[in-house]
Amino acid sequence: MAWDFSTDPEFQRKLDWAEVFVEEKVVPLEALFPDLEFQPLTPERRRIVDPLKQEVRDHGLWAPHLDPELGGQGFGAVKLTLINEILGRAGTWASVVFGTMAPDTGNAEILARFGTPEQKDRYLEPLLSGEIFSCFSMTEPQGGADPRVFTTRAVRAGDEWVINGLKYFSSNVSTASFLIVMALTDPDVPVQKGTSMFLVPRETEGIVIEENHQIYGHAPGAAGHGLVRYTDVRVPLDAMLGDPGNGFGVAQSRLAGGRIHHAMRAIGYCRRLLDMAAERALSRKTAPGVLADKQFVQGFLADSYTELLQFRMAVLYTAWIIETQGGDAARKEIAALKIATPKLVTDAVHRTIQLHGGLGLTAELPLARMWTSGMTLGLADGPTEVHKVNLAKALLRDYKAVEGLWPSEMRSNRLAEAHALYGDLLD
Amino acid sequence: MAWDFSTDPEFQRKLDWAEVFVEEKVVPLEALFPDLEFQPLTPERRRIVDPLKQEVRDHGLWAPHLDPELGGQGFGAVKLTLINEILGRAGTWASVVFGTMAPDTGNAEILARFGTPEQKDRYLEPLLSGEIFSCFSMTEPQGGADPRVFTTRAVRAGDEWVINGLKYFSSNVSTASFLIVMALTDPDVPVQKGTSMFLVPRETEGIVIEENHQIYGHAPGAAGHGLVRYTDVRVPLDAMLGDPGNGFGVAQSRLAGGRIHHAMRAIGYCRRLLDMAAERALSRKTAPGVLADKQFVQGFLADSYTELLQFRMAVLYTAWIIETQGGDAARKEIAALKIATPKLVTDAVHRTIQLHGGLGLTAELPLARMWTSGMTLGLADGPTEVHKVNLAKALLRDYKAVEGLWPSEMRSNRLAEAHALYGDLLD
Amino acid sequence: MAWDFSTDPEFQRKLDWAEVFVEEKVVPLEALFPDLEFQPLTPERRRIVDPLKQEVRDHGLWAPHLDPELGGQGFGAVKLTLINEILGRAGTWASVVFGTMAPDTGNAEILARFGTPEQKDRYLEPLLSGEIFSCFSMTEPQGGADPRVFTTRAVRAGDEWVINGLKYFSSNVSTASFLIVMALTDPDVPVQKGTSMFLVPRETEGIVIEENHQIYGHAPGAAGHGLVRYTDVRVPLDAMLGDPGNGFGVAQSRLAGGRIHHAMRAIGYCRRLLDMAAERALSRKTAPGVLADKQFVQGFLADSYTELLQFRMAVLYTAWIIETQGGDAARKEIAALKIATPKLVTDAVHRTIQLHGGLGLTAELPLARMWTSGMTLGLADGPTEVHKVNLAKALLRDYKAVEGLWPSEMRSNRLAEAHALYGDLLD
Amino acid sequence: MAWDFSTDPEFQRKLDWAEVFVEEKVVPLEALFPDLEFQPLTPERRRIVDPLKQEVRDHGLWAPHLDPELGGQGFGAVKLTLINEILGRAGTWASVVFGTMAPDTGNAEILARFGTPEQKDRYLEPLLSGEIFSCFSMTEPQGGADPRVFTTRAVRAGDEWVINGLKYFSSNVSTASFLIVMALTDPDVPVQKGTSMFLVPRETEGIVIEENHQIYGHAPGAAGHGLVRYTDVRVPLDAMLGDPGNGFGVAQSRLAGGRIHHAMRAIGYCRRLLDMAAERALSRKTAPGVLADKQFVQGFLADSYTELLQFRMAVLYTAWIIETQGGDAARKEIAALKIATPKLVTDAVHRTIQLHGGLGLTAELPLARMWTSGMTLGLADGPTEVHKVNLAKALLRDYKAVEGLWPSEMRSNRLAEAHALYGDLLD
Repeated sequence: MAWDFSTDPEFQRKLDWAEVFVEEKVVPLEALFPDLEFQPLTPERRRIVDPLKQEVRDHGLWAPHLDPELGGQGFGAVKLTLINEILGRAGTWASVVFGTMAPDTGNAEILARFGTPEQKDRYLEPLLSGEIFSCFSMTEPQGGADPRVFTTRAVRAGDEWVINGLKYFSSNVSTASFLIVMALTDPDVPVQKGTSMFLVPRETEGIVIEENHQIYGHAPGAAGHGLVRYTDVRVPLDAMLGDPGNGFGVAQSRLAGGRIHHAMRAIGYCRRLLDMAAERALSRKTAPGVLADKQFVQGFLADSYTELLQFRMAVLYTAWIIETQGGDAARKEIAALKIATPKLVTDAVHRTIQLHGGLGLTAELPLARMWTSGMTLGLADGPTEVHKVNLAKALLRDYKAVEGLWPSEMRSNRLAEAHALYGDLLD
Repeated sequence: MAWDFSTDPEFQRKLDWAEVFVEEKVVPLEALFPDLEFQPLTPERRRIVDPLKQEVRDHGLWAPHLDPELGGQGFGAVKLTLINEILGRAGTWASVVFGTMAPDTGNAEILARFGTPEQKDRYLEPLLSGEIFSCFSMTEPQGGADPRVFTTRAVRAGDEWVINGLKYFSSNVSTASFLIVMALTDPDVPVQKGTSMFLVPRETEGIVIEENHQIYGHAPGAAGHGLVRYTDVRVPLDAMLGDPGNGFGVAQSRLAGGRIHHAMRAIGYCRRLLDMAAERALSRKTAPGVLADKQFVQGFLADSYTELLQFRMAVLYTAWIIETQGGDAARKEIAALKIATPKLVTDAVHRTIQLHGGLGLTAELPLARMWTSGMTLGLADGPTEVHKVNLAKALLRDYKAVEGLWPSEMRSNRLAEAHALYGDLLD
Repeated sequence: MAWDFSTDPEFQRKLDWAEVFVEEKVVPLEALFPDLEFQPLTPERRRIVDPLKQEVRDHGLWAPHLDPELGGQGFGAVKLTLINEILGRAGTWASVVFGTMAPDTGNAEILARFGTPEQKDRYLEPLLSGEIFSCFSMTEPQGGADPRVFTTRAVRAGDEWVINGLKYFSSNVSTASFLIVMALTDPDVPVQKGTSMFLVPRETEGIVIEENHQIYGHAPGAAGHGLVRYTDVRVPLDAMLGDPGNGFGVAQSRLAGGRIHHAMRAIGYCRRLLDMAAERALSRKTAPGVLADKQFVQGFLADSYTELLQFRMAVLYTAWIIETQGGDAARKEIAALKIATPKLVTDAVHRTIQLHGGLGLTAELPLARMWTSGMTLGLADGPTEVHKVNLAKALLRDYKAVEGLWPSEMRSNRLAEAHALYGDLLD
Repeated sequence: MAWDFSTDPEFQRKLDWAEVFVEEKVVPLEALFPDLEFQPLTPERRRIVDPLKQEVRDHGLWAPHLDPELGGQGFGAVKLTLINEILGRAGTWASVVFGTMAPDTGNAEILARFGTPEQKDRYLEPLLSGEIFSCFSMTEPQGGADPRVFTTRAVRAGDEWVINGLKYFSSNVSTASFLIVMALTDPDVPVQKGTSMFLVPRETEGIVIEENHQIYGHAPGAAGHGLVRYTDVRVPLDAMLGDPGNGFGVAQSRLAGGRIHHAMRAIGYCRRLLDMAAERALSRKTAPGVLADKQFVQGFLADSYTELLQFRMAVLYTAWIIETQGGDAARKEIAALKIATPKLVTDAVHRTIQLHGGLGLTAELPLARMWTSGMTLGLADGPTEVHKVNLAKALLRDYKAVEGLWPSEMRSNRLAEAHALYGDLLD
């Protein structure tokens, strides 16, 4: 039994429910509570959001990316893709309502795997249910994408670790209850072996948010991305998550599940864009006719559809490899998706804005924000360029250099092969 | 049972055999007998090619796209994709050896479906086995892609049809035993209803090949693309294939099976290009190191891989729709693949040539020819631009215009929805 | 005397002064008073801005695009390009300080050309000096780029015109002292002949700003783009600017001077982007080295430079045609610049953001805003697609169809020509 | 006196004559004598070509790129651009007829500058007049674009140099009378200092053309690109051109004049493509109308025009810098043109082929050949990627890194500047 692109009918019913639920009940939250996803629920927001979460739980879709022991559904990556492409249509509120908020669920995974019973007691349940927030504090301002330039140190002093350093793009630090901080514990070995991870309660002395930067256009209430100074921040020995020197292992364990979540959600994003483009093409008058009659417009629609079709199938295939063979087996595919996502999205946004004219750039439509979000996708998981280097290196492991001057495909080689095989039969 | 991207092991063994067989025994024919695929087999070529065909038959892979009653395997479109991506690595000789030569197998389908017993007796078996060739004579020189400007007429005179007109890009007419000719039989109705299809033996009086054009760079022996003048060409009444006025139905029946063959084969094409690029990157020295160390080169490899991954999965998905729901259900996907194929291929060729330097443009490597072939893919099945128009029209059937001035995604709409739903709960 | 790409030394000194002045004194206003360019000057802002304007006047650079009788310098379009590429580095405050604010100076041109003495007395001087603002109210919400769908009417009633209709993207209406409104006065003739232009004081009864939309990310104080309802708005007969039915002539007279101002300013925009990219490439550490050592980064810089070099020379050339032969002679070049500008800018922004990582998308740098502004450039003067259609039509006027089936470049044609010329000399 | 884009009338008359002459008398040679430009003139060809050369001399346009002492016109680079954009419309025969054939005229420059009187007596005049041919033998097969991997050696033995090595892409070696060979004379210093240049008569013993590769699609008579083995090739001491170790200086002196000739000619190339595209758009019927009515076709024309306009002005500007300030002053512009040229041409060819359908890919039109030639332009002067690296390095010399964590454009920096300047004036 092989090659099947269908969804089993029972699960399809869940998806059908989710699609309507998201469109009708979740999408309006974006306009109602803009950029407040990482702010604690006020009583007003709680009255609306809590029942929605309950509906999701009742339909067996809460935390679809987590294992049952963390309150999730234990769906594999393929089913998760099918859910996430629905959630991706809506903004971040869909993540809140379905319990899939990054970075909190990833941090919850780390906590579940490496935390002490006390740490779990205090943070795990409220984090998973969206009652508190957390911050992953890894990037440093002097060289974001390359850990080899990191300088934040943790030094052991008696039965404490003392952390000093400066971190940047520490998202949601302004509302987080705790931080997961990466710091060098052994500067004498390569960074991949000398870095450890720490759980640090936000209220610990010595943590100062020097600046909190907002993405352009986000509402003032957005939680932001902090520049965080750690000055003699003291934590107990068991604040170290995982083994000493294994900071990257801990970080990877967190990233593993989420490595293609952006790609999954981008499918929904692009569907929404295609829907907007098609509606506009049919609605907008020119003389005579409507925009949909114009070849340029037809080309926009055809290109967006063509690119999305290919991308979607690649995401589902990659999810299937992850599910059946593990994330390492899908390393090349994962890199390819990270490379493809930002261009897919920004091209689709571009075309859709172009059809909407000036209106498309106002705050009255989600398009201009999506135009910037598309760029984010080329940076948030590391810059596209780094993924290209990594993918090429992985690819090249399957090849070897040819001997001699010429490529193996040279006509002279081919002719020699032909004569070796068929020489007896030639005239 | 759903979402499975695996191949069943028994069929995988056939594929594994085919991959080695094509690489070792078929690829060298390209260098040995360039552009002779549509020339009758000489004794010399027969000594080599006939045993290869027999090997394919012995392995149950002959004519994998045809039904068993035409001597094929009755594989569905998914398995056919898996085979064609192997055949696509090699040139047209692979089609000869596996019995999948266009346009002959398509013409054979027409013959099998619409021909008289006498016509079948005379042409069907030798056509299917590659002993004779055929020509599909439809395009006219004054307006290739648009049948509404066609003028070739067939007029009934007693118990004959008399054909007059001029056809262009009548491929392989120089070696064909018969032609399938499209002609207007009723000029008073729309062209889609007034056109019929005729089987015309090549030796019929009145057929003149006025010119025979070669694709740039093809060897002089290539069969070429004819400008064919039909002057009072008389055929019996039963030369009409299918019903009067149903010429497009007949043509479509022929095209149906083959609508994504180019896309299937393009996968193999691009794999070969990626292999060549990777080998070159590892083999070519710079100082210090090799090309593979350069980011630009890494970017070439990563881009070619990323695009191919997505394209391949879309082809397999489209094949699955065709196989499980029929070609009409896959109309949008088929158009999308036709749109995507030429750019996929030319971009991959471009990068691979760039890695090979001047050598890549010589006749010593297949790359410069592939550079032109990539362009062919954007014209052979109709220009890319026509597919974009058709895809957009198909897409737009699923949408309707919005009422009123503003798009349905306007913030004011979303807010109104939110207030309707949640107004009671807001402060 | 011909082909000279130098600037005369005296004017170069003015440019050198302007470059330093803008960089040092004007650029900081962007951070200090974001999006307040179209708000009346408060005493605080006046204390800063008025002396800067005076400095510009003192250096003979005030209103460099206007004729001396409007207080300008009477520079031709080439010199104006050289100035505008400096102003383009800075945001809109540079336009305020140099007296080149759109749409006010364009509206001033209309007023000067078509206004009554009373209208000029009241509005012209304060408009030119930046003391009041104006609104050009032409686009309608149901079909922005195509005047053939406009429906706003002006009907004569005694010695008044009565205007009814709905206009969209009426920029700065919230702070404007008067509006220039386009309305149909004769619906029985083609729109190009039946439309007139009216000067309407903002305080006239019947004008309601139903909505005021902001470009995404602009500060709340931005003047915005209004949806303006005109209900029985009564103006005297001399409110009509120009002749009845000549609304488009009036509009064009306004647009004429400004047709390549966006392109001129885009040069400065892209220089700023290249400067930011280069600084970042040299400053940002990786291990080992800096971003500037990476080929991908080198490629970004090289591409931005290469595109800008070409674009800049085309702008200067177009300006020279406009200056020496008039705007009509440069119609094709103007369209080409409008087509080229948005892609030039967005590509340059994209690369520059990519080098800045997440920081590039925050409100701390101008990049994310420029990312959206780049899109604006493809819509503000009409969508890129419309310019492509117009350019193609203009181009095709210089060609005619070939007789017969084949292109004039066919080898057979060329051979026939050769034989006619040289046949006697051939063997 | 500044900024002038006009051509002086007297020179314009020369250009007008050249345009007609090339179109009418030179273009047909392409079809008549395909790929025979580097074959010695037979009596038949001489009867046709010699009078054409004489016409060019009579009009004062022979060898427009050379100084008068080499028989040229001493035009500067700007005038040369205006001529070359005319010659670029036609194939290589235009170079033959105007005496601008590469590599022969470049080799003639080397000979004139560095040759002995005997060498000049023997080769210079016939080379300049197109009676003999020459070969520039520099690239090696193991690493074409990077001289640091070259291994060909010249060792002094008594009063001779003895050359051993293998060279590739030695163009026209099959018909050359002499070769200019680059060889290492001092392997102990960096290659830039240890390489020398030698003039080697073709008949010298030890020179074997092991293979002669043709560009795909070129006629069998084309002179080709040789793989040349040098085995104990002995030449006298004065065969060294220039000083020992100055091989790159000699090579550069040759390349200097020609560094933007490809770009100049590409203008003409693209004009021809635009002419073909426009003619086809007007001539090709669809129902109803012609191709020119379709937006996709209009887009093709508009894009080709827009790109060419920009490119052309950049070439003329670069030529002007070279002419007025020397080639070194134009280093960045030259690199930018080399980067821009291949994409400009291949995009224009692509669009033009797309309009011609299958015909565009046959040998009956020049388009398919131009499709491959476009690729050549990205390799012939070194790969595009190398020019990008070099341009970026040159650009970055004008910048320096910023101090501290943040870019100089940070809002906080700008605000600080604003407060320093205007703090006293703020409320």
